Formats: sequence, structure tokens, C-alpha cells
Amino acid sequence: MSGMNSDQLHRSTLGIYSSLINEFNPGLQKLVSLGNSYIQAFKALAATSDAYFSALSKVGERAFHTASSRSIGDVLIRVSESQRRLVLELEGVFRSFSLEVLDSMEKNVRLDRDYLLGSRETYEVQLRSQAAALERLRRRPSQAYPQGGSEYVDFLRESHNQALQEEERRYRFLAEKHCGLIESFTKFMNKNGVTLQQQAAAWTEEVDATRRPEAHRPATLDNIVS
Amino acid sequence: MSGMNSDQLHRSTLGIYSSLINEFNPGLQKLVSLGNSYIQAFKALAATSDAYFSALSKVGERAFHTASSRSIGDVLIRVSESQRRLVLELEGVFRSFSLEVLDSMEKNVRLDRDYLLGSRETYEVQLRSQAAALERLRRRPSQAYPQGGSEYVDFLRESHNQALQEEERRYRFLAEKHCGLIESFTKFMNKNGVTLQQQAAAWTEEVDATRRPEAHRPATLDNIVS
Repeated sequence: MSGMNSDQLHRSTLGIYSSLINEFNPGLQKLVSLGNSYIQAFKALAATSDAYFSALSKVGERAFHTASSRSIGDVLIRVSESQRRLVLELEGVFRSFSLEVLDSMEKNVRLDRDYLLGSRETYEVQLRSQAAALERLRRRPSQAYPQGGSEYVDFLRESHNQALQEEERRYRFLAEKHCGLIESFTKFMNKNGVTLQQQAAAWTEEVDATRRPEAHRPATLDNIVS
Repeated sequence: MSGMNSDQLHRSTLGIYSSLINEFNPGLQKLVSLGNSYIQAFKALAATSDAYFSALSKVGERAFHTASSRSIGDVLIRVSESQRRLVLELEGVFRSFSLEVLDSMEKNVRLDRDYLLGSRETYEVQLRSQAAALERLRRRPSQAYPQGGSEYVDFLRESHNQALQEEERRYRFLAEKHCGLIESFTKFMNKNGVTLQQQAAAWTEEVDATRRPEAHRPATLDNIVS
């Protein structure tokens, strides 16, 4: 970057606009499309998870109404409920991914191409006008030449900084959106992980208890009338 | 359960075997099939997630090689890596679901139907033999009638308890497998949640820093040669 002359500065500015128009923008478009597939795949996963744990819950209900396995049935029902709640909450994370990340990316893709093409064109028009003014100055030996030259360079430098800022703004937008997504995921994990761990330990203990004789066997079984 | 007479006891024993053969076993078979769909859906999700974060990582690499957004690109690359690692680890949880839950359920489905049909048949054969012995005793008035009757009832009671135990063993197997699954999920969440939260906070801070002027803008930009 150091030691760029006017020509290098100009080519770097154009290079930034080209990269944003020809690479960043289509890249964003591709992300939107891949993100929508990701969300569809999550919906399919949620449906299969729901089917599985509904079926498990039904088995649990049958167990709950037996003489032998009431408490085990209760655990199976609660295990199933916990998983369905978990998937429901994860759906919230994916919904915000869809609304806050993908939708705003898609909106930007639509608007930004025109905006960037306009910015590049404005830069080129202004550049030609600045170059013409500089050329006029050079043809008048009576004018202070260095002053005009410095205005031209100031313009190139300012335009280059603007292009760099446009570029940075776009990458930052993408990074901020995805940091937000990761934060939603971690919030989901930390909120549910500890609670679920305690529940799972209690359920395991409850199921273990059924291995101990008498503790769970209906006492009335030994009290039948022949 | 209290106050069951011999006939009720017999019908309850048969009811338990019928329920295991006609409801529990097909229920398990259905769970295996739904569980395999669940795993397929997860694999599809993992593939779409990988595609999304590979594309995001490529955008991050482009940002990394710009003059404006090197640190933002670095964050995008690391965000992508963290998600791919997370999915890879979740694949391990689903793999153990497949191997330790579904496969052993499937094996049980195959073996258990024959075993239960055999147990029920053994019970019915023994019952007929016990009933015949009781009948013979009743026809001999010199024999102590109550003793023979009590043997018959003992047999019914013992058979009923055995059936209850078979039933409980099967529901417990299912509950233990699923408690294990929940524990794998919670282990995954608790292991990754806290680490990822710290990383996400650091990434957000890194991206925020690029909003502060001078801190990140290449100093040499102001040092160009015209």
C-alpha cells in the first residue's frame, strides 16, 4: 500500500469496486441460496425429530399404563417432550437466521449492485473532470502547478479511502450478522445444556431405581385372591 | 392389581405377552425406521451447513486479502471453522445414536418376537399341565386339596411376575438408551457452549474495533507518492 503513485491508486480504487461488484455481491447471492437450503434441511430435520419423539412418547404412554413400568413410561414421555421443546427452540434460532441474516443479505444483494455501479461511475466521471482540470492547469505556465497536482492526488486518495470504506462496511456487515448467529447458537446451548443435564441425571436415576427389587414392584401383586 | 383371582391373573399374563408382541415390538420397529430417517435428515443438514460455511469462509478469505478488511476476514474464517467443527462433533452424537440406540433396537426387534412367542407358548403349555394336575388332585378326595390349589396359584403368580419383569426389562432398555442419547446431547452442548460464547464475544469485539478510525486503517495510505 505504501508508496502508491496516482496510477496505482486509481487502479486500486477500480479494483475494489470491481471486486465488490463481481465477487462480493455474487458471493452474497450464493450465500443466500445456500442459507435457504440450510434452513430447508433444518425444517426436514425438525420434522423427522418430531416424528421420532412422538413415536417414542406413544411407547412411553403405553408403558405408563402398565403395572410394571409406570415410572419408566413417565421418563420416556419427559425425554420426548424435552427433545421436542429443544427442536422448537432451535427453530427460533433458525428463524432469526432467516429473518436477520439471509433476508437482509438478500435485500443488500438487490440494492447494492446498482449502488456500487453508480459509485464507480461517479468516481470515473469525477476523475475525468479532475484530470481535465489538471491538464488545463499544466497548460498555463503562469499558474502555480504544484497546487493543482496536489488537488488531483487528494481526490484520488479520498476516492480510494471511500472505496476501502465501502468494502470494509460490506465485510463488516457480513461478520456482524454471523457473530450474531453464533451468539444465538451459544445462547441456545448454554440455556438448555445445564438444565437438560440435570434432568437427564434425574431420569437416569429414576430408571436405575427400577432395577432395585421391591422399590418399584406393586406390593399388591403378592396379595392376590386365588 | 390387588385382589386378582386366578382367571384375572392368567388373563393379565397373556395380555402382557400380547402387548409386547403386538404393540411394543412393532413400536420398536417403527422407532428404528423413524430414527433412520432422522439420521438421514441430519446428514442432509450437515451437508448444507458445510456448503454454507465453506462459502462464507471463501468470502472471509477474500476479505483477508484486502487492504480494508483483513481482521474481519479472519473473523469470518474462524466463525466458519467453528461451525464446521461443531457439526462434525454433532455427527459423532448422531453416530452413537445410530450405533448404540438404533442398531441395538433393530437387533432386539428381530430376536425378541420369537423369544416372546416362545415364552408365551411355554407359559400356556405349563399352565395346561398345572391345570390338569390340579384337576387330578380335585378328583382324589383323600388328597389335601388346598395344597394343590396353592401350587397352581403360585405358578400363576410366578408366571405373572415373570411377564411383568419381561415387560419392564424392555421399557427400561428403551429408557436407558434414550437417557444415554440425551446425555450425549447435553455433553455436546455444555462442552461447546461456553467455549463458543467466549470466542463469539472476542470476534464481536474484533469486528467492533474496525469501527474505530485509525485503529485499523492502514497508516501508509496517507503516505502515498503522487
